[in-house]
Formats: sequence, C-alpha cells, structure tokens
Amino acid sequence: MKVIETVDEMRRLRRTLAGPVGFVPTMGYLHEGHLSLVKRAREDNATVVVSIFVNPTQFGPCEDLEDYPRDIKRDLTMLEELDTDVVFMPPPDEIYPPQFNTWVEVTGLTERLEGAARPTHFRGVTTVVAKLFNIVQPTRAYFGQKDAQQAIVIQKMATDLNMGLDVIVCPTIREHDGLAMSSRNIYLTPEQRRSATVLSQSLKMAERLWTDGERNAEHIRSEMRQFIERQPEGQIDYISVADTLTLEELDTITSAALVSLAVRFGKTRLLDNVVLRPYQGK
Amino acid sequence: MKVIETVDEMRRLRRTLAGPVGFVPTMGYLHEGHLSLVKRAREDNATVVVSIFVNPTQFGPCEDLEDYPRDIKRDLTMLEELDTDVVFMPPPDEIYPPQFNTWVEVTGLTERLEGAARPTHFRGVTTVVAKLFNIVQPTRAYFGQKDAQQAIVIQKMATDLNMGLDVIVCPTIREHDGLAMSSRNIYLTPEQRRSATVLSQSLKMAERLWTDGERNAEHIRSEMRQFIERQPEGQIDYISVADTLTLEELDTITSAALVSLAVRFGKTRLLDNVVLRPYQGK
Repeated sequence: MKVIETVDEMRRLRRTLAGPVGFVPTMGYLHEGHLSLVKRAREDNATVVVSIFVNPTQFGPCEDLEDYPRDIKRDLTMLEELDTDVVFMPPPDEIYPPQFNTWVEVTGLTERLEGAARPTHFRGVTTVVAKLFNIVQPTRAYFGQKDAQQAIVIQKMATDLNMGLDVIVCPTIREHDGLAMSSRNIYLTPEQRRSATVLSQSLKMAERLWTDGERNAEHIRSEMRQFIERQPEGQIDYISVADTLTLEELDTITSAALVSLAVRFGKTRLLDNVVLRPYQGK
Repeated sequence: MKVIETVDEMRRLRRTLAGPVGFVPTMGYLHEGHLSLVKRAREDNATVVVSIFVNPTQFGPCEDLEDYPRDIKRDLTMLEELDTDVVFMPPPDEIYPPQFNTWVEVTGLTERLEGAARPTHFRGVTTVVAKLFNIVQPTRAYFGQKDAQQAIVIQKMATDLNMGLDVIVCPTIREHDGLAMSSRNIYLTPEQRRSATVLSQSLKMAERLWTDGERNAEHIRSEMRQFIERQPEGQIDYISVADTLTLEELDTITSAALVSLAVRFGKTRLLDNVVLRPYQGK
C-alpha cells in the first residue's frame, strides 16, 4: 500500500495505472461504512485509491473542524487489511494553497436540507471532490447513502460538469440497534447514544406507514416528529419527505421519495434517511 | 478533419488518442487571432481539437448573444486548411441540458475590470471551459492575450482545481493599423473602425511612457484617458494599470503590470491590453 502526500506524486502514480481506478474519498476516522465502500471499490476495480482529508472548506465557522476525530494509524491499518493500493492524504495547504480562490457550486439542490442548515457546506464538498477527482482521475467514485444529499449533489456535479466517471452510492451501514454509522457518533454521551436510535426507528415507521398505503407526506413527517419528540434528548433540525432528484418537499408521494432527518443531541448533529421506492418488478 | 456534435462521441474519440492533445476553445467566426492559436497547437501536439460554441452563459441579459456573428462553413474551411484533426461543435442543449445547475467560479480576480462591467460573464466562461476541458481532456489549451483577464482567470481555475493541463497564452494578433483582431470588430461603422485605433495607440503611448521611466500608474492612466478623449467616438469603460496576477490597481509600477482598457463605440465594446514587463536579461 502506497501512502502519498503530494498532488504531484499522486498524479505521477496515476499515469502508471492502466485499468479502472476506484476512488473512495474520506475524512478519515474510518468505520464500517467507509470500509464497505472500499470493499465495493476493491471488487469493481483494478486499483483502489482512498483519500483521507479533513476538508476545512466544508465546515462552518462554528463547526467541529478542530475537534473532528482523527486516527491515521488505525485508518491505515484498516485500509491495508482491505488490500487498498493507494492512500492519498495531503496536508491542508497542498489542497488549499494561500492564494486559492476557485469554487465549484451546485445551485438549487444545495439550498435545501443540510444546505439550509449549513450554507457553505456543499460548496466546500463539491470543490474538494472536484479537485480530488481531477487529481486521482477515477473510473468510479464511491459514496455512502447515509449522506444522501451529498451523494445526490456530487452526482449532479459530475453530470453537469461532464466529469466522465461513475458516482456509485452504497447502502448505509448501521450499528446492531439501527444507528447509522458516523465518525461523529463518538461525540454522544451514553444516554444520547441510547436515544439516538430514534432516527432509524422513525424512518422504519415512515417505511411502514408508506408500505401500508400512506401517501400524504405531511402525515408521515408529523408521525415521525411526534415519535421523536417522545424522548427528551434530541432536538429536531428537520424532517423531510422530498423528491429524490430535486429534493423539493412533497405533498403527495407519487413515485420515489427521500425521507431524511437531522436531529441534534447536544452539539452533535446526526443524519439518517431512507428511500421509499415503488416496487419496479423484476 | 472530424466534426463532432455530441459529448459522447467526443469522449469516445478522445479515448482513441494516444499522444498530446492541443485544444483551442472558440466561439467561432474565426479570425487570424484564433488561427494563430490553432497553428501553435498544431506545432505542439499530436492531435489538435478546436471547439466552436457560442456560450450563452457568458453573455449578460442585454448583450449580443442572438446577434453574435456566426459563419460555420467558413470556420470549417479555415480549420481544415490548418490541418485541424477534430472540430467539436455541440448544440447549446448538449452543453446545457434543461436541469443544468452547476457553476465553476474564480472569485476575487473576476470582480475587477471585465467582471465589474459584466457581473456573470466569467462564471459563464469558467463553467464552459471546465466542461470542455473535462470532455476534451487536453494536454495543452490555448488562449489569446487579447482577452488578458480571461486568460488569467482560466489559468487560475486550472491551477486551483488541479486540472493537470497547460494553459498557454499566445500574443494578440492585430490589423495593419494596430486594431486587435476580434469577432466583434465587424459591428463597427467605417467611422468607428477608424477611431478604434485609439486603443492600440494609447497602449503604445503607455509603453513609451514606461520605457522613458514613468512609474506612476495614475499618470499613465490619465495620459491614456486624455489621448482617447481627443476623438469623439469612443466612450471609455475603464483604463487600468494593474498587477498581472491579482489584477489589483497599482499606484506605482514596481514589477510587471497589465495595462488594459475597454472602450465602447456605439453598442460595441472593444478591449485591448499590453503587459509592461521589466527586462529580465537573457
């Protein structure tokens, strides 16, 4: 496994790779969710590149950039075990030199949900991902369904800017009690950790309502809200039932819908989602 | 010479090209300025790709998109004569499909000079050039010094987003009386055409002042302004003596400086510039 820290060296190495390259961009502090992406990339491609870069531009001024959990040694061990070929882990000023001044922005989509709560977040995400795509030049790039809006925004960017690669979205990986894996879960107190299962439970309830024929989106939102408010810990940021492409809130569910929510436990904001998808036959 | 109209076909053809690819993006209605770029690309590369695309997103709402001059047949004949390999001329909705929503923007630099006069212009330029770069994947891309700020903005974008290609800026090509070649020169009435030589003449004057030791930028601007105002036709939009990298206006010229101006003749806005560059030795 090669560990590379500069853009120039990554570019040089990329030129020597002939077959398909699978790429998993991460901010490190890897968990089973990230590892599932690496495994999938390993199955699909001749070469697997994983980046570890805590991207400052996607954090807001009052967010947890400084405190974001890091454990490079453990990350590298885990990636080595999965037969990763290349780890690209540049220092911040290799990606953002002092005069850096260019941004990639998906409009519309990014103003909703997470974008409404974190106004410059997606601009930071799309800019760094565009840069990483240009440096690594992957054939396929892998993202988790857990950050559903991020995956949709990146797919939109890749399509709109003709990036010529496949953006592949892999299923959310969960703890045994249903909590979606996230590097931020370690911030939770034991009590918050127990309460945090309301996210996945409320989504299961939404699925059940939908399977039973409920098509009124506001009814689903309101049932979820009541369910979550029954426990005292979590503060709801949003509960959304939206179109899977435009992320516009729905009144009536007529085709696929993304049910997503953000709930704060103290300073920790947790996300989760499920897609309600009509049965398409075989 | 292959003429290609779809992104997919351009991409397929690109995969078959082994050596360096030189790329000249144009809006068509080619003149000697464009052709000098194609000739240079021909010298430097195994394959030469020229695009012809009148990019709607770089025109303001009151600008000349509909009237922009077009003569595809003549363009293709000229390109064939220069041994161009590929002409990529997509229709507008191939580049901007209905749901298009992603923008590439260089900040700072683009707020000055042309950007101050045309607020969404450079966002349109950088977005379409980023898309064309992703589609054509050139080794080298060629731009004219005539649009000096555009060249600087594109170089900045390519660097900031790690596009991994060389942006090469070629000298301005001029008519016999000094007028910089531009597709928009055909809009000029005969009288305006005669007056339009004040742009290059005022730049020659600036060069002369500088060669004679003048380092006060405001003095140079004011001499140019007086010179241009002596003829009644042209309305000055701006006269600038600026840093060649940041485009910040200078008080005193201490190293290289970009002297640039925009002058309106009726509805036609003409640009020209010269770089004052200290003698570097051999």
